Amino acid sequence: MNLYPDVIGPPGASQRRAIAKAITLLESTRAEHRAQADELLTALLPHTGQSFRLGISGVPGVGKSTFIEVLGLYLIALGHRVAVLTIDPSSTVSGGSILGDKTRMEQLSVHPQAYIRPSPSSGTLGGVAEKTREAMLVCEAAGYDVVIVETVGVGQSETAVAGMTDMFVLMQLPNAGDDLQAIKKGVMELADLVAINKADIDALAAQRAQLQITSAMQLLGLFGPHDDAHWRPQALLLSALGGQGIDGFWAAAQQFQRLQTANGNWQARRQQQSLAWMWERVDAGLKQAFRQHPQVQALLPQLLQDVAAGRIPASTAARNLLSAQYP
Amino acid sequence: MNLYPDVIGPPGASQRRAIAKAITLLESTRAEHRAQADELLTALLPHTGQSFRLGISGVPGVGKSTFIEVLGLYLIALGHRVAVLTIDPSSTVSGGSILGDKTRMEQLSVHPQAYIRPSPSSGTLGGVAEKTREAMLVCEAAGYDVVIVETVGVGQSETAVAGMTDMFVLMQLPNAGDDLQAIKKGVMELADLVAINKADIDALAAQRAQLQITSAMQLLGLFGPHDDAHWRPQALLLSALGGQGIDGFWAAAQQFQRLQTANGNWQARRQQQSLAWMWERVDAGLKQAFRQHPQVQALLPQLLQDVAAGRIPASTAARNLLSAQYP
Repeated sequence: MNLYPDVIGPPGASQRRAIAKAITLLESTRAEHRAQADELLTALLPHTGQSFRLGISGVPGVGKSTFIEVLGLYLIALGHRVAVLTIDPSSTVSGGSILGDKTRMEQLSVHPQAYIRPSPSSGTLGGVAEKTREAMLVCEAAGYDVVIVETVGVGQSETAVAGMTDMFVLMQLPNAGDDLQAIKKGVMELADLVAINKADIDALAAQRAQLQITSAMQLLGLFGPHDDAHWRPQALLLSALGGQGIDGFWAAAQQFQRLQTANGNWQARRQQQSLAWMWERVDAGLKQAFRQHPQVQALLPQLLQDVAAGRIPASTAARNLLSAQYP
Repeated sequence: MNLYPDVIGPPGASQRRAIAKAITLLESTRAEHRAQADELLTALLPHTGQSFRLGISGVPGVGKSTFIEVLGLYLIALGHRVAVLTIDPSSTVSGGSILGDKTRMEQLSVHPQAYIRPSPSSGTLGGVAEKTREAMLVCEAAGYDVVIVETVGVGQSETAVAGMTDMFVLMQLPNAGDDLQAIKKGVMELADLVAINKADIDALAAQRAQLQITSAMQLLGLFGPHDDAHWRPQALLLSALGGQGIDGFWAAAQQFQRLQTANGNWQARRQQQSLAWMWERVDAGLKQAFRQHPQVQALLPQLLQDVAAGRIPASTAARNLLSAQYP
């Protein structure tokens, strides 16, 4: 079964089926499926790369689904085709992806110009992210020119999403109290833009949040050179439910794309992401092979205990383990 | 030559010589030295672990040396013995460690109760950090009960220092202008305490900096549970040159130690550090062996180009490389 012609073929029912089959193929753990998937991906690759890859993260309740529904319909009205993928490592535990539940995006999920795919529901974060990254390539080859990759703040999933998208957006709520809700360690550093949702509920709180976040981003050194050629992360106010600020959000996203394209960062970021991704997968493979090595498995339990108890220096234990694999 | 008795022996000239020789031994890259060093470290290990491991970071000019000199003399006056180690990966390039220059700490460097050792001047950050971590164990076995590990903000050196110390302190300056100087990405997350130095020069600016940093730490979720059993990172004002705030700093450090010991985090952090360190060294070894594998070396240049140019999916390239090492 050659999925290639239908994936790159005209939009419609055959294409949708081919995309779904292609993604199922690349999510398969069977070796012959993997070989087929690699072949398909390599064939599709020349047709990929033309989309705006938009990463969106935020805690549950921040309004991601509502925002993506409203933004998606807005973009479709502008003539775009929109794919929505999700990374939810917790779905491995729950056995099904809450995030990927299509009923969350009622209109977008049934729109012919939209394609929504829930999170792969098994595997490590690295494996889940790999499949999502590959699903993104399939959607691009099928002509979706905006791919939204959504994640909830679980584990390192934001890092994975920021590592596969052109622009990473962190959604926040304006807190009702004096303090902003805390942002997860390290996530602020990833954000190209912070979108403060539900800003219409308490305009003053939203503006205070905007100031606080801008000041924190400044303190954290997230602002690059002071010139017009470089993007400075910003905090925008919007209300997804009220449909306010969507046009402003997309205008900012387009300005980001213009600047990054002009100064070369757009392409450079994608290259770095591809190479980083390759090394990430190599590292994961090396670690897996290492942990499955019989000699390592024989030595490891005792060494872990000895290191934790302070009986053997960590560096000595590491050398012992390495010489088990490479005698 | 068995260095063990002199290292754990009484303080004095023989011990100093033994410490220096031990550290030189473990910095050696010769295989037989490495075996001797591992043997020595394992013998010393039961005598280690009783010190307060204090990490200090900050950009050049923030006043780290002055602070360490003043703090070190203060601690010696309280009856402590103080070792100062540095991690300066840039010394690999400059051929000598600026940080380790003993003339920076005039009184401390000649004090019989102090031991100062510059950064190892060759190797990767991982290698330099490993040697510093091991030097710390040697100093502990020799009875130094405060070990200060200092670094300048180069590359990932802060992460390395935070990963080998009980308390990580980030030194900052109160900025003369409206904005604080930017903090390096990800470093704020590591800080157990921020020390704002030179606070006597402009008290108002220092207080504003204190507020801004506290607010940013809150926003970043660096504060744990709201109870008395958990440490909340704080920003302290001090003037190392004026000798102001040193007692307050040490009181905070001791309070940190009391809380962390009582709630079990002190020991848990050390165990995690040892295990993380073991895995970090294993990973480094696996990567090195991988990159030296002839088949990998043969494939890699072309694959890197193909991935960067978008001709081969990153995940496919990773699988190709892995099957070169594990056919």
